[in-house]
Amino acid sequence: MSCIGVVDTTFARVDMGAVAIDELKSLLPHTAVRRLTVPGIKNTVWGALKLIKEGCDAVIVLGWVGPTPVDKYSYLATSIGLMHLQIETGVLVLDVTVHEEEGGGDDKKLKEIALDRTRKHVWNLVQMLRGGLEQYAGKGVRQGYPHAGEII
Amino acid sequence: MSCIGVVDTTFARVDMGAVAIDELKSLLPHTAVRRLTVPGIKNTVWGALKLIKEGCDAVIVLGWVGPTPVDKYSYLATSIGLMHLQIETGVLVLDVTVHEEEGGGDDKKLKEIALDRTRKHVWNLVQMLRGGLEQYAGKGVRQGYPHAGEII
Amino acid sequence: MSCIGVVDTTFARVDMGAVAIDELKSLLPHTAVRRLTVPGIKNTVWGALKLIKEGCDAVIVLGWVGPTPVDKYSYLATSIGLMHLQIETGVLVLDVTVHEEEGGGDDKKLKEIALDRTRKHVWNLVQMLRGGLEQYAGKGVRQGYPHAGEII
Amino acid sequence: MSCIGVVDTTFARVDMGAVAIDELKSLLPHTAVRRLTVPGIKNTVWGALKLIKEGCDAVIVLGWVGPTPVDKYSYLATSIGLMHLQIETGVLVLDVTVHEEEGGGDDKKLKEIALDRTRKHVWNLVQMLRGGLEQYAGKGVRQGYPHAGEII
Amino acid sequence: MSCIGVVDTTFARVDMGAVAIDELKSLLPHTAVRRLTVPGIKNTVWGALKLIKEGCDAVIVLGWVGPTPVDKYSYLATSIGLMHLQIETGVLVLDVTVHEEEGGGDDKKLKEIALDRTRKHVWNLVQMLRGGLEQYAGKGVRQGYPHAGEII
Repeated sequence: MSCIGVVDTTFARVDMGAVAIDELKSLLPHTAVRRLTVPGIKNTVWGALKLIKEGCDAVIVLGWVGPTPVDKYSYLATSIGLMHLQIETGVLVLDVTVHEEEGGGDDKKLKEIALDRTRKHVWNLVQMLRGGLEQYAGKGVRQGYPHAGEII
Repeated sequence: MSCIGVVDTTFARVDMGAVAIDELKSLLPHTAVRRLTVPGIKNTVWGALKLIKEGCDAVIVLGWVGPTPVDKYSYLATSIGLMHLQIETGVLVLDVTVHEEEGGGDDKKLKEIALDRTRKHVWNLVQMLRGGLEQYAGKGVRQGYPHAGEII
Repeated sequence: MSCIGVVDTTFARVDMGAVAIDELKSLLPHTAVRRLTVPGIKNTVWGALKLIKEGCDAVIVLGWVGPTPVDKYSYLATSIGLMHLQIETGVLVLDVTVHEEEGGGDDKKLKEIALDRTRKHVWNLVQMLRGGLEQYAGKGVRQGYPHAGEII
Repeated sequence: MSCIGVVDTTFARVDMGAVAIDELKSLLPHTAVRRLTVPGIKNTVWGALKLIKEGCDAVIVLGWVGPTPVDKYSYLATSIGLMHLQIETGVLVLDVTVHEEEGGGDDKKLKEIALDRTRKHVWNLVQMLRGGLEQYAGKGVRQGYPHAGEII
Repeated sequence: MSCIGVVDTTFARVDMGAVAIDELKSLLPHTAVRRLTVPGIKNTVWGALKLIKEGCDAVIVLGWVGPTPVDKYSYLATSIGLMHLQIETGVLVLDVTVHEEEGGGDDKKLKEIALDRTRKHVWNLVQMLRGGLEQYAGKGVRQGYPHAGEII
């Protein structure tokens, strides 16, 4: 693999990009990582496209979403855009988002969610590139929260 | 037919992929089945695209959707993405989703919905490839619930 | 004209497809009609695309939409998909939908809405292909309900 | 300029198309105008595409939107479709909509809104083709309502 | 760089375009700036496309969004359209919006938000073209509001 891209934002309140890079270097020590920081989630489509054009084989997008209805529309538009981008390029773009209201007003909890979700989705990205998530299918796996688990 | 694809998720709490494969092998014993598991519904567009590129003639996507408004936006974005994918490739992508709130808090019921819906949509997929759903047109057919029936 | 396509669903509770075919044969007796039945509205994009590839010059899509918010998102995604399809192919796809809640709990009324709307939109389809709706512009024409009429 | 297109609907309760044509003939007396009437807003994407293929350099779309949540989803899907169309073709498609609830139950008021909005957006279309709206930038210009005005 | 585009609207109640041009001339004194004013946000996709075709390497879009649910759907459709445009052309389109309700009824406050957001996003645009936002990643940077800051 020539390169994995990391797109993050200045809007985010946790440095998810740095965590993703650490995790990628640990899991894929021989693969180059390119980071591109953009202002907010709506700019991540351009960011991911740029890294794909520069040769990245996969991109992880780390978005932070505000709590208002307008923020959620921005989330929806971005999600649609990142799927469109994958259809156009065939490159995996793993879309990770943290929503401000998930912390329930507790910043420390919000940070923990952001860090856990980022690390686990980096692991997911690596598995998707290698193949092998099949053994976890239907297991109720979560990122940022305890696993929901399989219904027995 | 060279291959039918099955895309499922680790987010799901029921192994819908395994059920779909069993059902496909029963209905189409001479057709290869390829499975690809991704983390969650938003990743199914990439998963389905990958299986199409690997030669699958049709793909069944088995999604599990959380109960929050953000989860529903993820559902909407994914639905738009999977339609886009079909327009781009011409390949049938049958989009099956189970929504967490459908169980009404009863996990056993939720599992039954997921299994029934999966089996019935595999049957639908086979009919769509062969032609022949016309005799059931307007019959109020449901998956995961009792049939609503035709209005007489 | 070589062929008009009719896409309908097994989810619908009224055989709108049969009504559309009767109406098309009455209005366009020398034109072939091809019908393709799919499970639900989200599959109509694939259905319409298939009929277009098989040579249809226009397609009428007969959808039935459940009453829940998730059903409405499926409606939205399908509407976006069918517009996308028209932009890609240039072929007219007339999108007719009946919404479960329109009956107000009265199945007989719901069936009447479905039949009236289907017939009137088949007539619309024929007018769109021939040209000639200009004389009805701004007249408050409705399908399934009494005409709202022009504001004088 | 070879031709300006006007797409309107039979669903509308005011003949916005006729008003747009009058206004276009007054502002661009040497330019041909082509009109195409379709049933409702969801069909305007096909209508505008048809006029673009027939050579129109710009199209004004005159939509009328019902008051229900489903009507608003149809509005959203159409808006997305008309933007998609502009990206595909590069042709200006100016999307004018009147929403049934804007009249507050007063049909006469609703008609005035529709007529004023149509005339002012025809003028906008002409300015966009010629260039020259820059002098009105940030002025709080409205169509169908009194101007909001610039914040001083 | 040959040219930066500025798309703004006559609907806006603050001349955000003029402010953006001043800021661009200050930050990029040797780069040409082209401005195109359109009626409202839904027309910005066409405006940005036109400037891209005329050679702009990046475009800043300055939108003003009304407070109603219909206005928010227009916002959503525009956001989707501007992402689509970036995917098609590869050109950076930075989408800045001010929402009427952000002022809480205080026009002076609303104007301050609009001016601050415009200036800060012009700075963002320049950083994105040069590279270098990485040092602000995860810092909770805001435009139009005080910075939220990084969670320590």
